[in-house]
Amino acid sequence: MATESTGPKFDTPLRIGVVLFPGFQALDVFGPMDCFNVLSWQHPNMTLSILAPTLDPVSTKSPVTPHAIGEQVVPTHTFASPPPLDVLLVPGGLGTRGSAPPLLAAIDFVRSTYPSLKYLITVCTGAGIAARAGVLDGRKATTNKHAFKEIAALGPNVHWVPRARWVTDGNIWTASGVTAGIDVTIAWIGEVFGEAFAQRLADEMEHTRHTDSSVDPFAELYGLS
Amino acid sequence: MATESTGPKFDTPLRIGVVLFPGFQALDVFGPMDCFNVLSWQHPNMTLSILAPTLDPVSTKSPVTPHAIGEQVVPTHTFASPPPLDVLLVPGGLGTRGSAPPLLAAIDFVRSTYPSLKYLITVCTGAGIAARAGVLDGRKATTNKHAFKEIAALGPNVHWVPRARWVTDGNIWTASGVTAGIDVTIAWIGEVFGEAFAQRLADEMEHTRHTDSSVDPFAELYGLS
Repeated sequence: MATESTGPKFDTPLRIGVVLFPGFQALDVFGPMDCFNVLSWQHPNMTLSILAPTLDPVSTKSPVTPHAIGEQVVPTHTFASPPPLDVLLVPGGLGTRGSAPPLLAAIDFVRSTYPSLKYLITVCTGAGIAARAGVLDGRKATTNKHAFKEIAALGPNVHWVPRARWVTDGNIWTASGVTAGIDVTIAWIGEVFGEAFAQRLADEMEHTRHTDSSVDPFAELYGLS
Repeated sequence: MATESTGPKFDTPLRIGVVLFPGFQALDVFGPMDCFNVLSWQHPNMTLSILAPTLDPVSTKSPVTPHAIGEQVVPTHTFASPPPLDVLLVPGGLGTRGSAPPLLAAIDFVRSTYPSLKYLITVCTGAGIAARAGVLDGRKATTNKHAFKEIAALGPNVHWVPRARWVTDGNIWTASGVTAGIDVTIAWIGEVFGEAFAQRLADEMEHTRHTDSSVDPFAELYGLS
């Protein structure tokens, strides 16, 4: 990609964080992270922190699918010792359900960290984590469409938007299910680094974008009004 | 997803393998793997082996982008001690260039393992690894469109297809760049488990598929005939 002005919002380093917990959805993390990885080829002042309860690798396997296959990702920091962050990515997945201690630790981390963030991005049922952390109260947000009602019930004070590829409210960007995480991240890069830059990045990833956040074929498919 | 007959091709366990090397493209691995992970929720007889030169975590960072951010994934097996595999996934990425020892080990592994596979799937410049392994000789194949000429030069005896989201030739499925890996994997699942099952899986991932392998907007964008 051609180099381009990075705009005034991140003259300082851009410090990305990702929250992991057992049973995270792989693509909820690596759709956005691939965008950020490619961004970092051009924007050298980036750091990535992968946060979890301990530094042990975290698996995409959740307790509810013990027979499933899964991949393990290595954290860089614990929730107890986080570095300063500008952007926090919160994925969804089967592991967002229930009250397993690592999940509760992730919810607590989102609650305590949100006030110091420039942006919070959630993907899929990751919005349920943000809702349980209380940071979506009074905000518009969306989530996975197949699990919409289940996740919406976790945040009775959230203005849930059933028909949206993603929703922005203030500095919180919430995406719909799984691959919507790619679209929300490219849209965020467009906001911060310019749309032309974001489109070139999408082209290099050969990604056919959803560019209109209000167009959502999956809301209709799953019977959401 | 509703359970459904898995078809006759995999009454036996479905043994997936993934080749890793430093500088692999995160989404080349985790687009397909997310599809396989979701498949494994319904199809219990699956195993996953993540193969690398050693059991040390492998980073998406490549030597050519030392300032980039990256994620580390934990292998399960070394190239020297692989389990039997049915399907091998070969990702691309900046790390497919050059002659670093871990890359050469990956190429050797693809060469020695291919004869025992039921299917080989490559994503993006992963086709360059397969080409250097010699397993694409005499076959039709495609690769990343921005890097098409560079990768095609690695396989002078390959029938490179410039305009394709993915190409199948015998038991080899080669995808175009990055997010094409999601489409090729869902198409493969459709072939093996039935199209209705594959479409439901895509819907749950809220993925707007490319379903026609010959439609390729990125070939045009990058000036390939």
